[in-house]
Amino acid sequence: MKLYHSPKAPNPERVTLFLKAKGKLDAVEIEEISIMQQEHKSEDYRKLSPFAQVPVLVLEDGTCLTESRAICTYLEGIFPEPNLMGADAKEKALIEMWDRRVELMFFMPFAAWFRNSHPAMAALEDPQCEVTAQKSERSARSFVKRLDGHLAENDFIAAGRFSIADITAYVACGFAGVMKWQPHEEFEHIGRWHKRLSDMSFASA
Amino acid sequence: MKLYHSPKAPNPERVTLFLKAKGKLDAVEIEEISIMQQEHKSEDYRKLSPFAQVPVLVLEDGTCLTESRAICTYLEGIFPEPNLMGADAKEKALIEMWDRRVELMFFMPFAAWFRNSHPAMAALEDPQCEVTAQKSERSARSFVKRLDGHLAENDFIAAGRFSIADITAYVACGFAGVMKWQPHEEFEHIGRWHKRLSDMSFASA
Repeated sequence: MKLYHSPKAPNPERVTLFLKAKGKLDAVEIEEISIMQQEHKSEDYRKLSPFAQVPVLVLEDGTCLTESRAICTYLEGIFPEPNLMGADAKEKALIEMWDRRVELMFFMPFAAWFRNSHPAMAALEDPQCEVTAQKSERSARSFVKRLDGHLAENDFIAAGRFSIADITAYVACGFAGVMKWQPHEEFEHIGRWHKRLSDMSFASA
Repeated sequence: MKLYHSPKAPNPERVTLFLKAKGKLDAVEIEEISIMQQEHKSEDYRKLSPFAQVPVLVLEDGTCLTESRAICTYLEGIFPEPNLMGADAKEKALIEMWDRRVELMFFMPFAAWFRNSHPAMAALEDPQCEVTAQKSERSARSFVKRLDGHLAENDFIAAGRFSIADITAYVACGFAGVMKWQPHEEFEHIGRWHKRLSDMSFASA
């Protein structure tokens, strides 16, 4: 299998951290795509990824998978251990519920805040919208505060154990650094959870 | 099981159409929640749905599931037939990939366009942002045009057969009506696909 990957970009990182957590990073051949140099917008790349998304996982039969979480679903299917997406219907649903909360109420509002206010995004988001930046910042900060309360009573985000929801939140905390925001330094329980994840081999492998 | 539901709201409709497609709508007791009357913001309701989301599925053991797609994942687990989310790793990934494309590139940009421009949303989104409305409208229209091209060559959205991705897109086409937009009337192949779904008993049951 071949993974088209952009190091440092948050969605690609979800997939590589997921692979590391499976101990299967060496199961894919990695080809780096430079988003800064717009390699993802080339005609050749669009044959693999029609919406110019990174990452893409190309299977042995040539099937091209995009959307980081869908790629993780494939990897969960072929590398079932350690289980990261739920072992039965209820656990799968609880993990997906929290993974979506993290993605839709933290990762995405943060991305909207970043894109609508950071000078580096001005050309891409022309025109940026300050109102949307402010509302998105409020949404992301509000969710993260509640996540801190959740982690005061839970060691992991979903279903009482390490899962893809932790990986998504870990990536989001790193992504937040582009706005000089460090949720894991601002909030005690997120900080404790973040250190627990950083100490796991998956994060440094 | 008990489903807290708001008829006409698009996310709740994803779950009820999914249940209908399973032939299992009668497996849940439905309690209606009025979003217009802000019943989802009451203290009692927040005990079930901490982020005030509709729908919620309450399981027999009291577990509360939110996030419509996570609820569908649970229902897929307990009611496996007909399969709507993929039978093997590759099919699951392809269906999730397309379901996410529809949700993230059509449903959500459409929602942002609606919320930032429709007079009925002015109080909720105060202040609305015209720039964000315009960019979101462009994004949604651009994706839908490409979806029409995809449906020129495919009877269903993902994996060559009816799936949750069709349900999500069907709901999004209905939701689009609030901006007097009818993608299934504007585009030939979406129209043909939409009629095929409307003719299926799930849509009218």
